[in-house]
Amino acid sequence: MSAERIVVIGADGAGMSAAHQALRVAKEHDREIAVLAFEATGHTSYSACGIPYWVAGDVESGDQLVARSAEQHRELGIDLRMGTRVTALDVAGRILTTEDGGTHDWEQLVLATGAGPIVPDWARGEDGELYGGVGPVKDLDDGAWWLSRLDGDRRRVVIAGGGYIGIEMAEAALRRGHDVTVLTRGRVMGSLDPDMGERVVAAMRESGVTVVEGATLVGLGVDDDGHVRQATTDDGTCHDCDLLVLALGVAPRTQLAADAGLPVGDHGALCVDERGLVVPGVWAAGDCCEVWHRLTDESVFLPLGTHANKMGRVVGTNIGGGRARFEGVLGTAITRFSYDERVVEIARTGLSEAEATDAGRDVLALVTEGSTASGYMPEASSAAVKVVADRVTRRLLGMQIVGGTGSAKRIDTAAAVLWAGLTVDDVVAMDLSYAPPFSTTWELVQIAVRRVADRL
Amino acid sequence: MSAERIVVIGADGAGMSAAHQALRVAKEHDREIAVLAFEATGHTSYSACGIPYWVAGDVESGDQLVARSAEQHRELGIDLRMGTRVTALDVAGRILTTEDGGTHDWEQLVLATGAGPIVPDWARGEDGELYGGVGPVKDLDDGAWWLSRLDGDRRRVVIAGGGYIGIEMAEAALRRGHDVTVLTRGRVMGSLDPDMGERVVAAMRESGVTVVEGATLVGLGVDDDGHVRQATTDDGTCHDCDLLVLALGVAPRTQLAADAGLPVGDHGALCVDERGLVVPGVWAAGDCCEVWHRLTDESVFLPLGTHANKMGRVVGTNIGGGRARFEGVLGTAITRFSYDERVVEIARTGLSEAEATDAGRDVLALVTEGSTASGYMPEASSAAVKVVADRVTRRLLGMQIVGGTGSAKRIDTAAAVLWAGLTVDDVVAMDLSYAPPFSTTWELVQIAVRRVADRL
Repeated sequence: MSAERIVVIGADGAGMSAAHQALRVAKEHDREIAVLAFEATGHTSYSACGIPYWVAGDVESGDQLVARSAEQHRELGIDLRMGTRVTALDVAGRILTTEDGGTHDWEQLVLATGAGPIVPDWARGEDGELYGGVGPVKDLDDGAWWLSRLDGDRRRVVIAGGGYIGIEMAEAALRRGHDVTVLTRGRVMGSLDPDMGERVVAAMRESGVTVVEGATLVGLGVDDDGHVRQATTDDGTCHDCDLLVLALGVAPRTQLAADAGLPVGDHGALCVDERGLVVPGVWAAGDCCEVWHRLTDESVFLPLGTHANKMGRVVGTNIGGGRARFEGVLGTAITRFSYDERVVEIARTGLSEAEATDAGRDVLALVTEGSTASGYMPEASSAAVKVVADRVTRRLLGMQIVGGTGSAKRIDTAAAVLWAGLTVDDVVAMDLSYAPPFSTTWELVQIAVRRVADRL
Repeated sequence: MSAERIVVIGADGAGMSAAHQALRVAKEHDREIAVLAFEATGHTSYSACGIPYWVAGDVESGDQLVARSAEQHRELGIDLRMGTRVTALDVAGRILTTEDGGTHDWEQLVLATGAGPIVPDWARGEDGELYGGVGPVKDLDDGAWWLSRLDGDRRRVVIAGGGYIGIEMAEAALRRGHDVTVLTRGRVMGSLDPDMGERVVAAMRESGVTVVEGATLVGLGVDDDGHVRQATTDDGTCHDCDLLVLALGVAPRTQLAADAGLPVGDHGALCVDERGLVVPGVWAAGDCCEVWHRLTDESVFLPLGTHANKMGRVVGTNIGGGRARFEGVLGTAITRFSYDERVVEIARTGLSEAEATDAGRDVLALVTEGSTASGYMPEASSAAVKVVADRVTRRLLGMQIVGGTGSAKRIDTAAAVLWAGLTVDDVVAMDLSYAPPFSTTWELVQIAVRRVADRL
């Protein structure tokens, strides 16, 4: 019996997790498979999330962001073709075409094409190229480019977008000594409720960042060399600008799949079943896919490395002959804004008050101020915890944390609670850890939940 | 209708939580209660756990360890009698006698007499007094005493006991510049499995602490002034010693209750039902009680401030007219050994491999090395995570963490998982938070559990 031919498109987290897991599980099941993978770019398995920290100077070299090189993938048994773009899929015929005109057939195909940065028309000149000084923050080439631009004299840096990448790049540019302005159509950290997001904005402003919310960027002014000099928002305001970071989010890369007639959902992302199957013989994983939200029971587009790795593992298990399903997401996320002595950690999981209300839940939501350690300890930093709970079921629905060092990772306790569907009363009763350097006697998260439980 | 008379014995965490919660809940239920409380010592609601950090120099004044003063309790409506020891209870007659001969009747009694340090006979002279230089670490007077003893020239400090207080006092004495020896009958951090505990021992030794395990202290040598100069272990070894910290654990203070005929369990602690009731009209909470272990379904003696506060709240709710029950413990605990640049965080929850095996479970346990942040980040510190899982049910049974800054508080994620009775597969699937300063793409805890899940 010849080996089953598996083809993977995309050699980042999802694709390579699928490939390695398929090899591992197939071996366990005494199945022979051969994995051929195509990567359009020159990079494999790198941490896109690490780029802002590389630009900020926390990371010495872009190489450190590469979890596994192409060579390492090959040593582990994957026939990986770098810089090879797949241009067409024939799903019925189970055959694909690459840029160079080559064709390859498959028995199982894995689409792991990821997501690409959103680049509005106003960012490009008539030649279709980005204006000078304008760039996204998606891959290692972008990282190197930003590093070279920000490693110099003080410039006026405008960040377009106030989400995770936006505030991380604001921190990076600030730490590099530049004047930083964040322009965002909605609110900074829009995945938090306004009463929590405003704490982040306040910290950014106190650190010297100009934050303009509710401002849609509509056009750029450029100099004779085609280099950005101004960013204009919809109210007509012009913001001086030597460099402009495009941090407007990402869109799934699904044109190839859509052209092949594969089902694409409302978000433009591939629709997969819980095993990761698109149609028989075609699997997908990672940022090109929709994911199931456990709390709203809806398909959402939440492109994150954690989901990509998990989905890849699920797909690989199924291809390899095992059985696995992707169990969905909670919308957990974490980041940080840090400058000088100020550290603002930010985390969220589950539904915000706004999301829960939109989803038709009858909610009680309260913000509670607490401390990461006993008040008398030098480690103590203050933190605000917002708890969202269901008045009917008394279940926890969501949590948001904005606070000092040591506060945000506590969100995982809430994520575990949400995963299990526990009530606020369960959280109050729970045996969580306490010692003076690590928490107050009643743990921060528990105090916040207790206040809600007492009022429900 | 006159107010219902509630009497509380003991004005630390459990007793005062019960008292305040009773007042709060009674008010909600439009019930009138009057709370009279007796405290034998001169201290109320203080953090015993904070004493080693006060001694080490992290905390400026012992006053900072007091959560609420006697005056504050009185302002909140409690008739608190300080320095008043209760000497006898007449449970049938619902009346008690105090040291000064006064009698007080009650309708509901709360026993919150706590636990006292274990002081072996060898620590006392013929006059029954502790030898010079020998002392426990239980209350604020002890803290002040140790502070004065350790705030001076380099001395030879022996710590008797390798548990939480033992290693915290070892840190304190080391940071105060003394020569430190820890003598322990069993192992240092005996609540961890040996493969995890030895990591703590290694760090202590590298920091200059002499650690002697398996050494039972049998006697002290004293000078002509009755001051300790040597500590002798059962193998005949004499350890030079200018100061000796008694960190041999605590025993429940239940003589008063036992004398009154109330039920005391195998551990010498009071037996209470899930509401905190000992017998009709008599409640108990805190370190004088046994607690129910959720995973072994056994009564255990685990005197911790977290449990004391929760039990007090439960008793207060029930006395006030509400309904609450204490939902048990998991054996969660956390501490730290820190000296110079070295930080070793230590945490555990649930059953150790040894405990689970003793309880008749068929377990798989693995230690996994991971990182608290992405490897390329300056925040990254290494950590070992031990996972104990049930081979039959695939449920998580316990976790232990020994690692650098930011590692140990992750134990709460495991505690939430244990509380909910989830499997290792649930943990692998769980949507936990990731960003480079906070974790690896697969969270540390998740990687450790995944290794176990893959092998089950």
